[in-house]
Amino acid sequence: MSAARPAPLALTLGDPAGIGPEIALAAWRAREAQALPPFAIIADPAHLERVAAELGAPTPVKAVATIEEAPATFAQALPVLPLEAPVSATPGRPDSANAAAVIESIDRAVSLAQAGRAGGVVTCPIAKAVLYEAGFAHPGHTEYLAALAAKPGEAPPLSVMMLWSEGLAVVPVTVHIALADVPEALTRERILATARIVAHDLRSRFGVAKPRLALAGLNPHAGESGAMGREEIEIIAPAIATLREEGIDATGPHPADTLFHARARSTYDAALAMYHDQALVPIKTIAFDEAVNVTLGLPFVRTSPDHGTAFDIAGKGMARPDSLIAAIRLAGRLAARERAA
Amino acid sequence: MSAARPAPLALTLGDPAGIGPEIALAAWRAREAQALPPFAIIADPAHLERVAAELGAPTPVKAVATIEEAPATFAQALPVLPLEAPVSATPGRPDSANAAAVIESIDRAVSLAQAGRAGGVVTCPIAKAVLYEAGFAHPGHTEYLAALAAKPGEAPPLSVMMLWSEGLAVVPVTVHIALADVPEALTRERILATARIVAHDLRSRFGVAKPRLALAGLNPHAGESGAMGREEIEIIAPAIATLREEGIDATGPHPADTLFHARARSTYDAALAMYHDQALVPIKTIAFDEAVNVTLGLPFVRTSPDHGTAFDIAGKGMARPDSLIAAIRLAGRLAARERAA
Repeated sequence: MSAARPAPLALTLGDPAGIGPEIALAAWRAREAQALPPFAIIADPAHLERVAAELGAPTPVKAVATIEEAPATFAQALPVLPLEAPVSATPGRPDSANAAAVIESIDRAVSLAQAGRAGGVVTCPIAKAVLYEAGFAHPGHTEYLAALAAKPGEAPPLSVMMLWSEGLAVVPVTVHIALADVPEALTRERILATARIVAHDLRSRFGVAKPRLALAGLNPHAGESGAMGREEIEIIAPAIATLREEGIDATGPHPADTLFHARARSTYDAALAMYHDQALVPIKTIAFDEAVNVTLGLPFVRTSPDHGTAFDIAGKGMARPDSLIAAIRLAGRLAARERAA
Repeated sequence: MSAARPAPLALTLGDPAGIGPEIALAAWRAREAQALPPFAIIADPAHLERVAAELGAPTPVKAVATIEEAPATFAQALPVLPLEAPVSATPGRPDSANAAAVIESIDRAVSLAQAGRAGGVVTCPIAKAVLYEAGFAHPGHTEYLAALAAKPGEAPPLSVMMLWSEGLAVVPVTVHIALADVPEALTRERILATARIVAHDLRSRFGVAKPRLALAGLNPHAGESGAMGREEIEIIAPAIATLREEGIDATGPHPADTLFHARARSTYDAALAMYHDQALVPIKTIAFDEAVNVTLGLPFVRTSPDHGTAFDIAGKGMARPDSLIAAIRLAGRLAARERAA
């Protein structure tokens, strides 16, 4: 008897003036070559057909009434769950008139995932500035997903950004803040909260029985015993000790410069970096086109391509779908495991 | 008529209890396979013979009276310019009794290079703590070389550390300081002084007619127009403007995370990073064994392997000579160009 098939994935529209629509179409066209799991995009079928035609790559799309119809449709046409809000987009020209559609697409994808009807959510890039103009009040895409995932009357779950590729997974403990603000933002509590979520989700979603976490130091040479900064001694090492007491296989603080070459990468399942570029420089250096953004800590699977709306190349046929394809493939893999568990 | 051959390279002993002697012997044994230019090491012939024998890799060494004898000797034996100071070392056990020998080796290598009798200096790793015990008063290896290069009555030249590999060269503008101290240490003047030396030496030593320098931002996404830090706007961009006025092809500030993948690397000759790990993480991620440390700004060629004394593995036959071999090869290449110029 074969295992139950996971539910199809729900793709969000992202900003319709960005590269989201064209890379979603390209990902569907690559479905067989890339062995992608079935997905449906929550979008406007007429808009997608127009985007495809204008790029000289006519692509069959088919409106479906429910996501459950997606698998049967997927081989012949890109299944689209039609939006109620209107979409009217010119590539490269973001317009806050589309904000309602962008948000509806996210909301419905999360609802489907929360109900178990979608195996996971794969989000196309949004432009926050455009949504802010329309009254959107969340600091970012991921925070909005966390808010949607919150139980009534409770705070949203802490979400953690992981950048994932086949050979390297990295998690920045601090993320979108100025470098000068990193030392103050880096607390033992933040490291602990992040590492616990990473260890938990590597087990539950990635199927790593005993996840190995490697924590980088903050300073050159991991501070060289305090000669160049004391954060390793006062913050990072104590956090590692606590994690180990909790049974989490955490090592470090490791000098960051020797943590990411091929032999080093084979010694851990995820590297925790202390700041944005310490995490993103190594993974984008070796896996620029294939790295995937995975949000850990949410009650559903969520991945996204590791790039933005790219308004400057939207509609020109230049956008590479590699990262979205990798995001769809990883979401499918995580969804299958979740279903099996 | 063929061009004059460059003078042989002068290798320093480094700490005799570290891996320097064994990797120097291994580099000589690899001279043909690796097509290495002739070099002489300033060391104790008996000590080197002992190290080789204890590792089960007996290696012919030959004392030479002058470095000019090295090329004729090089095919049959490792040429050694004998030290006056004694060497008595047990692998893995640093001993300040060897400090005089370590320093004599450096001093004589620099003298030979300054006199044009050595094509360049390749230094094996030293342990500063051991030298400090013996009264050494310089902050590091490179600073000591700069002091030796100073003209009488003048300040030592500003030296710049470049990490070099075939596919990527990086220069950290700030180096061995705590991350929390980077924002204050990062000044327009420091960026300018560093970039000018890099541009100059890429032209004069590396033969790059019009060097292209790519400067990284300090903050995530290069600050995103000031949203995450203002150093890009207030310090880095103005420095780039000044460099361009001076005729130097400098670009940026670039987001660091998208500056080091293969396509990006092909757009510049050297990347200037704002701090240690921003430079060393990408190069050690992709060229861990082959990266070479090159000191720019000195009046002679100086390279060194990109690792330390590695006392923990000294004498065990585990040390890889790859980085020293790359350092010798690059020094030979730079010396040949200098001779040709």
